[in-house]
Amino acid sequence: LTQKNDDRTYPAATLRDFASHCLQAAGAPPETADTVADNLIDADLRGVTSHGIPRLINVYVERIEAGAVDPLARPTVVRETTATALVEAHNCFGVLAGNLARDLAVRKAKEVGSAWVGVAHSNHFGTCAYYTNHIAAHGMVGITFTNAPPTMAPWGGIKPYLGTNPIALSVPTRGGVPISVDLATSVVARGHLLLAATKGEPIPEGWAQDQRGRPTTDAAEGLAGAVLPVGGHKGYALAFMVDVLSGILTGSGFSRKVGHLYGDLDRPQDVGHLLGAINISCLIPLEDFYDRLDRMVHGVKSSPLAEWADQILVPGEPEATEQARQGEGEIRVAGAIRQQLLQLGARLGVPLE
Amino acid sequence: LTQKNDDRTYPAATLRDFASHCLQAAGAPPETADTVADNLIDADLRGVTSHGIPRLINVYVERIEAGAVDPLARPTVVRETTATALVEAHNCFGVLAGNLARDLAVRKAKEVGSAWVGVAHSNHFGTCAYYTNHIAAHGMVGITFTNAPPTMAPWGGIKPYLGTNPIALSVPTRGGVPISVDLATSVVARGHLLLAATKGEPIPEGWAQDQRGRPTTDAAEGLAGAVLPVGGHKGYALAFMVDVLSGILTGSGFSRKVGHLYGDLDRPQDVGHLLGAINISCLIPLEDFYDRLDRMVHGVKSSPLAEWADQILVPGEPEATEQARQGEGEIRVAGAIRQQLLQLGARLGVPLE
Repeated sequence: LTQKNDDRTYPAATLRDFASHCLQAAGAPPETADTVADNLIDADLRGVTSHGIPRLINVYVERIEAGAVDPLARPTVVRETTATALVEAHNCFGVLAGNLARDLAVRKAKEVGSAWVGVAHSNHFGTCAYYTNHIAAHGMVGITFTNAPPTMAPWGGIKPYLGTNPIALSVPTRGGVPISVDLATSVVARGHLLLAATKGEPIPEGWAQDQRGRPTTDAAEGLAGAVLPVGGHKGYALAFMVDVLSGILTGSGFSRKVGHLYGDLDRPQDVGHLLGAINISCLIPLEDFYDRLDRMVHGVKSSPLAEWADQILVPGEPEATEQARQGEGEIRVAGAIRQQLLQLGARLGVPLE
Repeated sequence: LTQKNDDRTYPAATLRDFASHCLQAAGAPPETADTVADNLIDADLRGVTSHGIPRLINVYVERIEAGAVDPLARPTVVRETTATALVEAHNCFGVLAGNLARDLAVRKAKEVGSAWVGVAHSNHFGTCAYYTNHIAAHGMVGITFTNAPPTMAPWGGIKPYLGTNPIALSVPTRGGVPISVDLATSVVARGHLLLAATKGEPIPEGWAQDQRGRPTTDAAEGLAGAVLPVGGHKGYALAFMVDVLSGILTGSGFSRKVGHLYGDLDRPQDVGHLLGAINISCLIPLEDFYDRLDRMVHGVKSSPLAEWADQILVPGEPEATEQARQGEGEIRVAGAIRQQLLQLGARLGVPLE
């Protein structure tokens, strides 16, 4: 749709400021806007563009303007025990509530060894790895679950009932770059079907089913049907449990009650999250943990290759490599996205260039 | 290989006693033998025959006799904080250490809301759901990870480096039957390939790769190669993290260092486990949790069906249905297994019938 030479790179700080000022123009206080912007740019710097600055354009600002997210709301702790807490998001930006839960989990795990913090009545909060990587930076195992709007049918069903409901886990390494898993329990996100449909391209078998529950390679049929869980009944079972842990356990929306991010502009999403931290040094000296993990990484990466592979990666390595490459440097913005950012900035009175 | 009419059903109590007395004849104290027998029978009653009484025949007794498991060892707590603990198994039967970890996690979660307990230097401990279901019976979320002997290559590799490394989660329901996920991060266990190879049957595509990393439907080639992770790189990433959490974090064996259950009779397996509990009532009143979960189960089960399906199950439902059907009643033992049990009993001086 656009020329490759419409792409442009910007300093990360420029995009972060632009995002923050757009959110402020839409009604978010500066501190809130900065926090949301940081979450978006973190995803871009790790190469997870789907959760980066493009979200600003047609969702985050729009949801403030529609009143679906309360930009003035601040999360509060409403229940607390020594090793658990429940954060009430009051329909604030998901990242505000996620950060509070994350910091509380880390503080408690420092004190008593481990903790779980749930978040109720929240919104989309970016990537789960954003939280687990921060927790790992404290010498801890970070664990995060969130539910998401329904796009996946229960195994044997046809009606979307569960979200992509991701699971994320991060652990620290001696070098400071976490090993990290952040995976949807669906084979792909619905966005991949949308993209294929837009381009008029077929989708690989195994991505989606049609409205009668039959496998399909037609993107439009898949969109009318449902995305498929990873590993069939296994992914369904995991998605189910993630909804129980993040939605049901926290008192948030669950299954069909979770609002769509791009639709349902007239109501809060009512997303639930659950964040956990385990203080590694309570189980094993951190240096021993690092030594052992180094050996495992070395073993995996030096293992003989399959015919079709040119290297073996450890979990989170593609994102870590991208982050190391980009550092605090420049983020490449695709031409089509750039045009929309410029339009958004013009409408809100925030210059990008 | 055997006639169907060689099958026989036995009262569960008869098989439990038989298992316990065989283990005692091999050198286990009565209490230990009873605990191991209970773990095996629990799997049979839930229809998970792979982890039931057949394990007695050619593994559990054999490992005692070979000195690979110490039947006299008792697990001890070697590190403890308010919300974590580390259990040293001293190469005891896995279920002894697993039970101690489980009970400690429950006690701590009752006191402070949640806890994680690791287990070091352990052995095969049965199904993970055995532990998570027990934790759920206390009104808690039960979580269990364990590593396992290497049968799966890293994604892009050819050499087995990771085990089936399962993940299990259970939550309680009002009716008392837990909702439970207990899944290997491989597509199937290696046992399925062995069975197909014995029968001379092909295996479905997606189960295994050959020695050069190519997909294969030949069971023998798959056995010489490796089983495949569920969902490709996603299952690999999960298996990796399960090994980090259960093996590396606890100071146990990890990756290629975990001993095989059926081979490696000359050495301990050095398996690691990690068990977690979250006290539901610290986050939401238990009755509210049950109400919400009931609504979710009802919604899923009454959802319209795909063409190919005749019902929608919730996670753990097949095992729960089997358990409800069998209750404390009878367990069907296949003819070939029965013959081996009779031989084992004759050798050890323990009558089965």
